[in-house]
Amino acid sequence: MKKILPPDVTDKQFDRVLAAFREVVGDNWVFAEETAELISYRDPYAIVDEAHFRPSASIAPDGVDEIQAILKIANDFNIPLWPVSCGKNLAYGGAAPRLPGSVVLDLKRMNRVLEVNEKFGYALVEPGVSFYDLYNYIQARGIKLWLDVPDPGWGSVVGTTLERGAGYTPYGDHFMRQCGMEVVLADGDVVRTGMGSMPGNNTWQLFKYGFGPYHDGIFTQSNYGVVTKLGVWLMPEPPGYRPYMITLQRDEDIEQAVEVIRPLKVNLVIQNAATIRDLHLVASLNTSRTEYYDGDGPLPDSVRRKIMADQDIGAWNFYSALYGPPKIMDTHLEIIRDSFAQIPGARFFFPEDRKDKNDVLHHRAKTMAGIPTLTEFGLVNWVGGGGHIDFSPVSPTTGEDAIRQFNMVKQRAHEHGFDYMGVFIVGWREMHHIYTLAFDKNDPEKKQRAYRLFDILIREAAAAGYGEYRTHLAFMDQIAATYNWNDNSLARLNNKLKDALDPNGILAPGKQGIWPKHLRDKR
Amino acid sequence: MKKILPPDVTDKQFDRVLAAFREVVGDNWVFAEETAELISYRDPYAIVDEAHFRPSASIAPDGVDEIQAILKIANDFNIPLWPVSCGKNLAYGGAAPRLPGSVVLDLKRMNRVLEVNEKFGYALVEPGVSFYDLYNYIQARGIKLWLDVPDPGWGSVVGTTLERGAGYTPYGDHFMRQCGMEVVLADGDVVRTGMGSMPGNNTWQLFKYGFGPYHDGIFTQSNYGVVTKLGVWLMPEPPGYRPYMITLQRDEDIEQAVEVIRPLKVNLVIQNAATIRDLHLVASLNTSRTEYYDGDGPLPDSVRRKIMADQDIGAWNFYSALYGPPKIMDTHLEIIRDSFAQIPGARFFFPEDRKDKNDVLHHRAKTMAGIPTLTEFGLVNWVGGGGHIDFSPVSPTTGEDAIRQFNMVKQRAHEHGFDYMGVFIVGWREMHHIYTLAFDKNDPEKKQRAYRLFDILIREAAAAGYGEYRTHLAFMDQIAATYNWNDNSLARLNNKLKDALDPNGILAPGKQGIWPKHLRDKR
Repeated sequence: MKKILPPDVTDKQFDRVLAAFREVVGDNWVFAEETAELISYRDPYAIVDEAHFRPSASIAPDGVDEIQAILKIANDFNIPLWPVSCGKNLAYGGAAPRLPGSVVLDLKRMNRVLEVNEKFGYALVEPGVSFYDLYNYIQARGIKLWLDVPDPGWGSVVGTTLERGAGYTPYGDHFMRQCGMEVVLADGDVVRTGMGSMPGNNTWQLFKYGFGPYHDGIFTQSNYGVVTKLGVWLMPEPPGYRPYMITLQRDEDIEQAVEVIRPLKVNLVIQNAATIRDLHLVASLNTSRTEYYDGDGPLPDSVRRKIMADQDIGAWNFYSALYGPPKIMDTHLEIIRDSFAQIPGARFFFPEDRKDKNDVLHHRAKTMAGIPTLTEFGLVNWVGGGGHIDFSPVSPTTGEDAIRQFNMVKQRAHEHGFDYMGVFIVGWREMHHIYTLAFDKNDPEKKQRAYRLFDILIREAAAAGYGEYRTHLAFMDQIAATYNWNDNSLARLNNKLKDALDPNGILAPGKQGIWPKHLRDKR
Repeated sequence: MKKILPPDVTDKQFDRVLAAFREVVGDNWVFAEETAELISYRDPYAIVDEAHFRPSASIAPDGVDEIQAILKIANDFNIPLWPVSCGKNLAYGGAAPRLPGSVVLDLKRMNRVLEVNEKFGYALVEPGVSFYDLYNYIQARGIKLWLDVPDPGWGSVVGTTLERGAGYTPYGDHFMRQCGMEVVLADGDVVRTGMGSMPGNNTWQLFKYGFGPYHDGIFTQSNYGVVTKLGVWLMPEPPGYRPYMITLQRDEDIEQAVEVIRPLKVNLVIQNAATIRDLHLVASLNTSRTEYYDGDGPLPDSVRRKIMADQDIGAWNFYSALYGPPKIMDTHLEIIRDSFAQIPGARFFFPEDRKDKNDVLHHRAKTMAGIPTLTEFGLVNWVGGGGHIDFSPVSPTTGEDAIRQFNMVKQRAHEHGFDYMGVFIVGWREMHHIYTLAFDKNDPEKKQRAYRLFDILIREAAAAGYGEYRTHLAFMDQIAATYNWNDNSLARLNNKLKDALDPNGILAPGKQGIWPKHLRDKR
């Protein structure tokens, strides 16, 4: 494959840049040849041409000083940098940069757990700290705090928070629980947000907002700075914990279920970020579609019914948990059981009711207690070839919206020959609907079909008022363009901030559709 | 008193500006003479020379179009504008501008309740909507939602949220419950944040973050835009509610009390933003110091004991409430009573235990249920002359920090001849310690003493690592300067954003210590 360079940079210039980079971090931490290391920064499930999101090189600094030196070089030579923490969010592009030829600024070596405070319930970590790292740190010290983990657990605590990802405990909204940042700006200036900018302060990880403008939000899903430290609140180990699941028999039961869930969630009777998972998603952890069916196109209903019977699961499966003193759990449980009992055919299970030790409830029991796992990767085996990208529209928590979204996505998926495979994650007043579009990444025709499907889904969702909260590299521009109220005033604001904070446009060009001036005008 | 003009603007130029303003909003909504209207925009409890924070004029637009027209004029003529919603936060300067001669941009006419949604629990309001307005709107329609109100309730819902104020229900952190904004930028461009920038979206008030950078925080405690619409989440009326108070006998009991409170709060057994109020603050609502004592200097202990006995209150008084189904309230109550029982002399009261209908618990019972009142203004009568400003450091929730802060502030207050009068508002992992510095606003010598005291308090707090979350106009620069880590990198970031979003520096110069370029360099 042809060598890829940053835009408007010659081979010779790039050699000088690499030499300068090596002086900063040493020869071992700059990757510019076609080695396994550099290949690891490519989009693992490339839905478009594999060259499209390829980096020219990567560099792995260890510390703020080295980042400042790298930024200086990048500013001098106009080298686009693509910062990643652990780069493990594979369904959204992994560590690959939006702009081909960017240099990946890989922060994995900055993996120190700087503090875990049991009294107040927080951690201060660097970007390379994975959920596993933090979990192991806490376990080794017998600290009575729980994490909130995404599935899977190898991702970065910082990265997940900056991308505003979700977990499944009562602390499921990661950004809401974030408290204090250290950010290196494009010009190398280092800022601590909130109380952190008072020297010797004692509340950097205790009080989110500080004095004056509250900045943290503009460093999430953005390309305005490189976050090098981040505080996260951790949940005290509750005095009791009881995970459970409720199965629903029919596709259309999602409508009634969400109407049941909304008041329970707004009133915090459902305490955690609960999920409603469809048949395929649940089944995919223990089986694959080829075990049941070798035809093309969506699974026939008869096969779906067989899977439901074999695995004793529903068309939809609600996973949640009780947390707290036994009396409080009992009270919540009674209300929840009574509420779901209105739905004909709904069945309630505790883990002890699920004999198979591979049952998904046994897995979710860990996830909803903040224990990192990699089990969720079973889903990549549902179809052969292991590719998938996630379509993630935000939905009001109503039955009407849930069934409408489900039908919209399912119909288009079926038209394009894909299964529906999805989950609704229940936030406080909205749901993240995640449709996992699984495809064979070695089949160019299927990839093209998947791309066309994704494109249609974005457009139809936007026309109906649903916007995505996050996306794969390939669709960032398209989704950003759906947030176009008042003739794109949000984009104008984003661009003003970009030009002020990164005038040379070296940081993550194109991330979330935000381009620096010199590339913006070309587009 | 001499007429005040904006800096570097002649009388003649200003007349042209006023004429242009009148063309936009009509003659009735521009105030430039020494009328009662214009005087109402002055600092009500001026701690420095009364001219210091005087506006040159005020203008009250009704709608985004008029605001855009005003911004155009202000940009053309370099007129500083000081936006206020209701301008009722008297202890921090009321509606008065930081820069003398600024024109107050009074948004009180924009007082529409645009939507209250009972199903999801939110309201969308304009800046002129007071807590009373929203409460009355909800009551008139029998909507089962509760507000979260500050004391007092005449303030603006939008203004309080933008200043990141606190209330006393489980929704006490107003900014955390804010969802969606419409902002007019200095150049007249109008942005909707989060999902609001997708046309026809259905989740603007349901999902806070949208796609790409999350901007809302930079429009709080800032001068980067004029917020014209704001969404706030409202709490569903709980199935049960029981307010209570616990009295503590000795000053030093604050230490043990906060150690009791921290785990209860982090675990949300204490569900609301509870408060610990000192003797004077509680007593001030029903009596005044002159009723008990006519000497100067702090109240002698014997008098304090008499007040405690007369009013059946403690040296400290903890006010909180139970919310939820009876079984959950009972469970929480048992844990809370057991925990406080460790403190010798602690006494527990429900409202029915407090016979006097003017008892503070009866008042707090309203506030903690989100019912707006003005009762809290009793505190201005504690000393004659009714002036007060609030000193508001953020503190870790530890007994050690509580007693240390209390002693620091009390000692300096006594040295300067003032009583300690304060409250600790218990947030999730920190406390807002609010010291109400009450002074006779008609006594220049006492005002000077109060100023000196405040100055010392800021410096001593900063030296010990405590930063203020908010302040009166007179101390914005000084407090901003305590957030000076890395040679003032936060100020550099604030200035970059200011120059990008408001290059002519017309919006609220000096707010929170952020000055536009042309005034910054002079300082």
